[in-house]
Amino acid sequence: MRLAYDGTDFAGYQVQPGERTVQGVVESALAAMHGGPIGTSAAGRTDSGVHATGQYVAFMTDLASIPEERWGAALNGHLPRDVRVQAARFVPPEFHARFSARRRHYRYRILEAEADDPLRRRYVHRIPWQIDIAATNAEAATLVGTHDFATFAAAGGEGNGTVRTVYYADFRRLGDEVVFAICANGFLWHMVRSIVGTLLQRDRDRHRSRIHKPTFADLLEARDRAGAGTTAPAHALCLTGVDYD
Amino acid sequence: MRLAYDGTDFAGYQVQPGERTVQGVVESALAAMHGGPIGTSAAGRTDSGVHATGQYVAFMTDLASIPEERWGAALNGHLPRDVRVQAARFVPPEFHARFSARRRHYRYRILEAEADDPLRRRYVHRIPWQIDIAATNAEAATLVGTHDFATFAAAGGEGNGTVRTVYYADFRRLGDEVVFAICANGFLWHMVRSIVGTLLQRDRDRHRSRIHKPTFADLLEARDRAGAGTTAPAHALCLTGVDYD
Repeated sequence: MRLAYDGTDFAGYQVQPGERTVQGVVESALAAMHGGPIGTSAAGRTDSGVHATGQYVAFMTDLASIPEERWGAALNGHLPRDVRVQAARFVPPEFHARFSARRRHYRYRILEAEADDPLRRRYVHRIPWQIDIAATNAEAATLVGTHDFATFAAAGGEGNGTVRTVYYADFRRLGDEVVFAICANGFLWHMVRSIVGTLLQRDRDRHRSRIHKPTFADLLEARDRAGAGTTAPAHALCLTGVDYD
Repeated sequence: MRLAYDGTDFAGYQVQPGERTVQGVVESALAAMHGGPIGTSAAGRTDSGVHATGQYVAFMTDLASIPEERWGAALNGHLPRDVRVQAARFVPPEFHARFSARRRHYRYRILEAEADDPLRRRYVHRIPWQIDIAATNAEAATLVGTHDFATFAAAGGEGNGTVRTVYYADFRRLGDEVVFAICANGFLWHMVRSIVGTLLQRDRDRHRSRIHKPTFADLLEARDRAGAGTTAPAHALCLTGVDYD
């Protein structure tokens, strides 16, 4: 099923004892429908505060009498208002929401303004200057391709290496916001936020006429976490989609 | 000053005993800065749940040493995160935020979708069908001009008659939403929500091939509240601006 959620009031996606998590409320809803525990797999384990408009979650059910198009409404009746099933379909038993995923898409929303916008405070990162989109995109373009992204990996990430393939990564003006969109076959822990934080810090320094040595490409190649800037805040990040074969 | 606020957690704009209101938190912030009570006037007394990106509030101050451009940051330091001063300027003493206002602009956000979007649940009204924009705008166009809007006035509104002048009123697709934008010299209590509710109900009936007699223009001319449809929910309405001479 495709899930959307407002991450503000969740301690992230993954189940944690004593915390309100997205996986927790989804598995509670499934348990209520099935009369017993149902395990799930998810495409991405989003961090605390991170949102989703295109998270994918799979599970095994014996309620085969419920047709595909009824699953959304049935589960939504058991879910809190900050999580909604957008669509659901039957998949082959070998499908795994995480391991079958080929590409994940994230967006990071930025508002260039002097004061916060109360209506978007949960969803955008406000910065008090105007981004030089061309210069920043010239740097972001070096991310595209297969690289070792150790520079942008937080300590404590998972074990399967730091090499990933990025398919696109760019900043665009969308209405009065700037949206950073990035797609990869997988992401390291805090990778998007670390990339955004580093690119924004370099852009701000450009405005202050500070000259950057090393270049952004040098930072990527160095595979050294110390070269990255601050990690941008979680609340402006959203998992917008996942591609499967 | 120009104010933006998220109306979700407020019992409307106007001070009410025992309730959290926008005026209440603004006057508390002003009192904290001035060391005593400061009265305010506001362009529009938005209802519970209604948002603003362009509310205007005026007050008298003896803190003339604070320059115009510092007032926003100074007040924001005393305000909760769901209210922000966007800008402030000195105005002549005869200026009154309500009585000097010439035109008020409102927007009503509609999402056509089968399931709610958790990230926009506080700001959009979801409907499970596609609006016929051309047919609905043909009806909305009859609102433009000077009319007696008694059909769309809730009981208990203020005393100064039910005649108002509407300058524009139309539905437009904006991204994946439909936005109803309306501007008038003033609005009756629940007028925008009553208009939106009536137009949406007629649109839904069109989809179900129900024939409408009377026409929307007939309803307006009848000046009879009984002819209006249900009042659309408050949480999708936003005061977006006010024009002064």
